[in-house]
Amino acid sequence: MSAVQREIVTPAEARDALLSQVDDRLRGLLAAETSRWSAVDPRAAVPVEAVAALIASGGKRLRPAFCLSGFLSAGGDPAWEPVAVDAAAALEFLHAFALLHDDVLDDSPLRRGETTAHERHASVHRAAGWAGEPRRFGEGVAALAGDLAHIYADRLVSALAPAAREIWHELRTEVIIGQYLDIRVAAERIADPELSRWIAICKSGRYTVHRPLVLGASIAGRQDLTPAFTRYGAALGEAFQLRDDLIDAFGDSAVSGKPTGLDFSQQKMTLLVTLAMRRDDRVSRVLAGQSGDGAGDGATLAQIVTDLNVRGEVERRIDHLVEQAQAAIAAAPLDLEWRDELARVAVETAYRQK
Amino acid sequence: MSAVQREIVTPAEARDALLSQVDDRLRGLLAAETSRWSAVDPRAAVPVEAVAALIASGGKRLRPAFCLSGFLSAGGDPAWEPVAVDAAAALEFLHAFALLHDDVLDDSPLRRGETTAHERHASVHRAAGWAGEPRRFGEGVAALAGDLAHIYADRLVSALAPAAREIWHELRTEVIIGQYLDIRVAAERIADPELSRWIAICKSGRYTVHRPLVLGASIAGRQDLTPAFTRYGAALGEAFQLRDDLIDAFGDSAVSGKPTGLDFSQQKMTLLVTLAMRRDDRVSRVLAGQSGDGAGDGATLAQIVTDLNVRGEVERRIDHLVEQAQAAIAAAPLDLEWRDELARVAVETAYRQK
Repeated sequence: MSAVQREIVTPAEARDALLSQVDDRLRGLLAAETSRWSAVDPRAAVPVEAVAALIASGGKRLRPAFCLSGFLSAGGDPAWEPVAVDAAAALEFLHAFALLHDDVLDDSPLRRGETTAHERHASVHRAAGWAGEPRRFGEGVAALAGDLAHIYADRLVSALAPAAREIWHELRTEVIIGQYLDIRVAAERIADPELSRWIAICKSGRYTVHRPLVLGASIAGRQDLTPAFTRYGAALGEAFQLRDDLIDAFGDSAVSGKPTGLDFSQQKMTLLVTLAMRRDDRVSRVLAGQSGDGAGDGATLAQIVTDLNVRGEVERRIDHLVEQAQAAIAAAPLDLEWRDELARVAVETAYRQK
Repeated sequence: MSAVQREIVTPAEARDALLSQVDDRLRGLLAAETSRWSAVDPRAAVPVEAVAALIASGGKRLRPAFCLSGFLSAGGDPAWEPVAVDAAAALEFLHAFALLHDDVLDDSPLRRGETTAHERHASVHRAAGWAGEPRRFGEGVAALAGDLAHIYADRLVSALAPAAREIWHELRTEVIIGQYLDIRVAAERIADPELSRWIAICKSGRYTVHRPLVLGASIAGRQDLTPAFTRYGAALGEAFQLRDDLIDAFGDSAVSGKPTGLDFSQQKMTLLVTLAMRRDDRVSRVLAGQSGDGAGDGATLAQIVTDLNVRGEVERRIDHLVEQAQAAIAAAPLDLEWRDELARVAVETAYRQK
């Protein structure tokens, strides 16, 4: 897209035009890999197809969108658009990697309304009556498919300059450490609101909003936007995660495509639960596992959170965080049209249904 | 090391000097990451420590050694040594990633004489009486530690030129596809010697010898060495894998640090087994799973392979492959001293005890 054209399209149109290039990039790379490995043996393409199935199952493409918004709002040179598109596609592959491994860690049966990879391949194994353990096979396929998505993500950031590459490494390292702390805190039933808040912000907020925006701006050579995007990303990232918790707790599985109440049954220390803890000691007692029965505890937790109407409190906190994000962007050295667009995106992200 | 110095040291001394820099690089990066994440929370460093434990547990550093041999034998400019050292360290981190995930896929209890990460962390979970399933937690830690090692590997190849980076992507993609075919063939009990040979060469041979050598030569700007290193690597890689099969089947666990007979009990279609198949139909029948009992089949397989003295045949094939590798290197455009060194390394690799 030339600079001339960019003047006559809205920021959202410009971003969506590049987002469709991101989808082409994802599909193109996967199609090439599928045909390449199928030529060796039809079976060899199975891990590639597992990645392709997840990518094709939709998703909000939030991270690519924030990366491209960071690039375009920073006035990125059209000559660098292919690099920005590849980086945005890399973020989507990285997300596929994180989801494939995360669904095994959480033993989640459903993702984007479809059976998760480890469940699907365990069923294939079971139905075919293959040798060995269906669970190990299914989880193995999901692990390898995730590793492959991770490799594809890296392939697409080859052209990044050192500063942008550092953001990339930082982003994915944080996600892994956050994932570990997430399962560790759930296992130990640690009721530490501050640690849990850090985990939620590290593995979800920064990864979804802050780092992709800063990455896009860095590709455009605008390190000066880092402070504003960091404030915007920190606030919106937390709002994003709080909404995620509400969708998990009270959402409609048919809309979200994810099981409802999974965080409760796994006693995840979500931001929602940390807020409930501050209001009622029973939450800590349940999380400390006084009743040993996980499922029972999950139900109790859901009931307490509902009784306390923490939901209303969380909605108010989301409102406050959206205002913070909008204030940060209003003060940013960006074109007026992009400040308006990012303010609109904050609302769209914080009040989404799925 | 300056060019002058290089003239007065043997090829092995030059390589070993860089290999010690590789170990410094591995330890340095891990120490920095451990202290960085410990500052957030002592628990946050656990996945880093799991990587560090595997790296510290030894291993032959074969892949770094072949990468550095490729670089030095190609007359790599000392100015590029830091890039070669980083790439060699990256290969060791990538190997740690592959082993951490592979040990989960194979449910292997032992690696380099120590309890595998997934077993160790499942025990920690069990001993502490944490919530949830010890197995899922232990396998989760191993998966995340592997992902982290994968990220560290990538950090270290940031400075690679596009041609070298392509070799890097190729190498790790092959390993993942090879891993999948490995578990798939074992699950389906496919008795296809050609497919199994391809898998063994793809996931082990190329990954251990051929690609690291070519990667090192590419950093030195010597693409002209690719044909010779490919021939040498293909032959030595197969010899390496055959030795691996013999060590697994008949080796001394106390020496190898790995369980003995694991391939048999999992009915892996190793090169050893494919050779046995050509000699005796009973092998195919066992692999086709006429007796359903995996362990029993494993014992039968071991007995048949011993009866047939396939071991002697494999040793003769290794001799032949070593001759092929030496012939390839004898014809390579390399200094005489490096041709001798790589010929010596072929013997050392093919006739190793562990």
